Amino acid sequence: MSENNSVIPKDLTNYLKHYGFFFPNAEIYGGLAKAWDLGPHGVELKRKLKNLWWKYFITSNPHNVGCDSQIITHPQVLAASGHLKNFHDWLVECRQCRKRYRLDNLISTEQFLAFLSQKDKNNYQVKKNCPHCGKNDFHPPRQFNLLLTTNLEITEAKENVAYLRPETCQGIFTNFALIQRSTHRQLPFGVGQIGKSFRNEITLHHGIFRTREFEQMELEFFCEPEESEKWWNYWTEKAWNFLNQIIVNDQKKNKQVDLSKEELPHYAKKTQDLYFNYHFGWGELCSNSHRGNYDLSQHSQHSQKDLRVNGIIPEVIEVSFGVERLMLATLQDAYHEEKVVGSQTERTVLRLPPLLAPFFVAIIPLSQQLRNTAYQLYLDLLPEVSFSLTYEEATNIGKAYRRQDAIGTYYCLTVDFQTAQDNTLTLRHRDSMKQERITISNLKNYLYNLYERHWFEFSQK
Amino acid sequence: MSENNSVIPKDLTNYLKHYGFFFPNAEIYGGLAKAWDLGPHGVELKRKLKNLWWKYFITSNPHNVGCDSQIITHPQVLAASGHLKNFHDWLVECRQCRKRYRLDNLISTEQFLAFLSQKDKNNYQVKKNCPHCGKNDFHPPRQFNLLLTTNLEITEAKENVAYLRPETCQGIFTNFALIQRSTHRQLPFGVGQIGKSFRNEITLHHGIFRTREFEQMELEFFCEPEESEKWWNYWTEKAWNFLNQIIVNDQKKNKQVDLSKEELPHYAKKTQDLYFNYHFGWGELCSNSHRGNYDLSQHSQHSQKDLRVNGIIPEVIEVSFGVERLMLATLQDAYHEEKVVGSQTERTVLRLPPLLAPFFVAIIPLSQQLRNTAYQLYLDLLPEVSFSLTYEEATNIGKAYRRQDAIGTYYCLTVDFQTAQDNTLTLRHRDSMKQERITISNLKNYLYNLYERHWFEFSQK
Repeated sequence: MSENNSVIPKDLTNYLKHYGFFFPNAEIYGGLAKAWDLGPHGVELKRKLKNLWWKYFITSNPHNVGCDSQIITHPQVLAASGHLKNFHDWLVECRQCRKRYRLDNLISTEQFLAFLSQKDKNNYQVKKNCPHCGKNDFHPPRQFNLLLTTNLEITEAKENVAYLRPETCQGIFTNFALIQRSTHRQLPFGVGQIGKSFRNEITLHHGIFRTREFEQMELEFFCEPEESEKWWNYWTEKAWNFLNQIIVNDQKKNKQVDLSKEELPHYAKKTQDLYFNYHFGWGELCSNSHRGNYDLSQHSQHSQKDLRVNGIIPEVIEVSFGVERLMLATLQDAYHEEKVVGSQTERTVLRLPPLLAPFFVAIIPLSQQLRNTAYQLYLDLLPEVSFSLTYEEATNIGKAYRRQDAIGTYYCLTVDFQTAQDNTLTLRHRDSMKQERITISNLKNYLYNLYERHWFEFSQK
Repeated sequence: MSENNSVIPKDLTNYLKHYGFFFPNAEIYGGLAKAWDLGPHGVELKRKLKNLWWKYFITSNPHNVGCDSQIITHPQVLAASGHLKNFHDWLVECRQCRKRYRLDNLISTEQFLAFLSQKDKNNYQVKKNCPHCGKNDFHPPRQFNLLLTTNLEITEAKENVAYLRPETCQGIFTNFALIQRSTHRQLPFGVGQIGKSFRNEITLHHGIFRTREFEQMELEFFCEPEESEKWWNYWTEKAWNFLNQIIVNDQKKNKQVDLSKEELPHYAKKTQDLYFNYHFGWGELCSNSHRGNYDLSQHSQHSQKDLRVNGIIPEVIEVSFGVERLMLATLQDAYHEEKVVGSQTERTVLRLPPLLAPFFVAIIPLSQQLRNTAYQLYLDLLPEVSFSLTYEEATNIGKAYRRQDAIGTYYCLTVDFQTAQDNTLTLRHRDSMKQERITISNLKNYLYNLYERHWFEFSQK
């Protein structure tokens, strides 16, 4: 048992690097502007988060199926979706120091709205000093499209330009008719996808919160127009329930209903964002949109293909999570520095949900003589289907527990001197630090049942 | 039971499209040159294949951990790895019809080797008529780098060019020291990664066999130089065992040991390829390379960082599978057209390994009155942790079985009129078509144990 002092870590980035969650991309070459790779523990967390989302939203839901479309995107797809025309920010550059800013971040909202309503934007003068060099000498604002391009052919002629997708959902819309026919689905049904997306963001900051390359988990739910409100309520609640099981601290999260008209993306009838209170302030975690029939109508017009089902173009409710920012929020919510009760020691522990901990169980020998026994037990358990395992040796058991606490391992199983006598082990719970004895013969079933119970409880909400 | 007439399907591509495995990318816009998306059944197969690889090579192996690096790659990484300089094909273009060819595909191997040894390549004249227009009027060959680029900043100045990675393994090498330190690993240990890679191939053909965008599953195993032969034997055998459990037809696969010096990639000491006999002929499935210490040495020199462990730069054994081509081979190996014994009927069945079938179990009502009972049973089983489920209604049970056979579902569970009387169901095996009765109360455990046994057997090889 321990006193729980939840804190915002002074340097979460360093912690996550030290413990193998996030590494700066190409660090040995000085890094690529704010790009991140996943280390061994980060990749397990990410895989579990994505598999949990897939299970919750796709394979355990009777309405939904999945798909997986390419990253490299046909230009006509993004012309139809409106991204070639509408997917941009306004950018200004300082003539003196060449720093670039997003105009809406540099000036006040009122000033920005006034700018937007102005006809002659080419002569607009930014009335603010450069935050970097202090001079007031900006170029006029210009539009900056957020799409990243690539060249598909040998020459770099214009017609060979394709785009790295800015969202996964367009691949769902372009495959809509093929998916519906190959699965014999009737309305309502949903199609989900997990995959990388890319945006050429001007301002990159806050670690993994905003990066050029990121992963999305998106569900597009297709329904009859008169049922869209019902399904809007259903899926926004599901998204909220999913989030609530991952982020347990209620004060750290919030939903913002009904974005104002100016804030709405070009495709949306309405949008609800789920927010998290990051160390730098409130930021978006999940965005739910009522997309109406915007996308399928656009693709139907541009491609001249009939995308109706039963004579209508379905409406779409979208639930869209960003994987990396959900990981960041999960890790920040899980991070605790604690004084261990009845002891002078402290510990740092990641209270990750049991289904997301990089390892569900660590096998630990109490002392050096017990290493062979413990390692053999570890090898015996490794082929287990459901839960994940690691093996830990340290100079003493306290250090071994601290290391596993620091990466969020949910249970520690210690082989001790009693083990040889009665075939039992110590099972230690990460959060309560309570210990109990458990027999080896029963171990696999016991852990499987624990794991299954966690998932069953999760799936019922 | 059935007579098994294994055939090469006349049009596997159409079959896979019809049954929701592979769709032409952006088909409604005429498609993007030979690019493919995954439909609902393809995405489940792909997820299972990737999860199986991850479990087999990473989480169930005591030596290995995973990582996940970015697609967008720092140019210095690919300068050090040799890709900027060496990763190219020789290309020729016909002056008459403008068709382009890879030189090594156009002329004989002897002619190509003679060309390579020639100093003045700019005046080389191809002595062959164009296969398209029949004229002999080619431009001189030129080198064509296979890397796809993207622009990272606002301007398209040279210094802002970055590359879409051509292989996942460079992200493992650049993170090597961070991974080793954060996991306290000593040699030997391996690091695996699954992710998208990109190559600007000139000739794209054979459906999903060769595409610009594809996914790789790569293990890089780091060891002491004097142990590298031992681990070469160990991992090439593991790769072969993994393949043998997925592709069961022995005549369809082969390994090619020791590529000749001219065929070797620039980084390799030796390479062994695993081949599959596709409908278009033999093609590569998996490539195992002894990379020596080439990559870590190069990155150490270029970055001026010390990448030694215990005073040495480790050597590397690589096992690299292409996900899409392994899927294609798996599907082609699994595809069977059969006459059902004792019946006039035929069936098409995908004999996919049970762990890879898009669905492990389908719940089917025998008749319309039983739909509610069957659907409720389906909903009750959906939260199951390990195995996957679908629900199937058809005008008759024979049609329902045929549909599930066609997508490879391993077991069918039929709710029939006996079910209400004694709480039993019919369990039908896909491959033997044998049926047995099973009690509902025992169902979940029974299926879980079947699934676990399949995995346990897989993991032991």
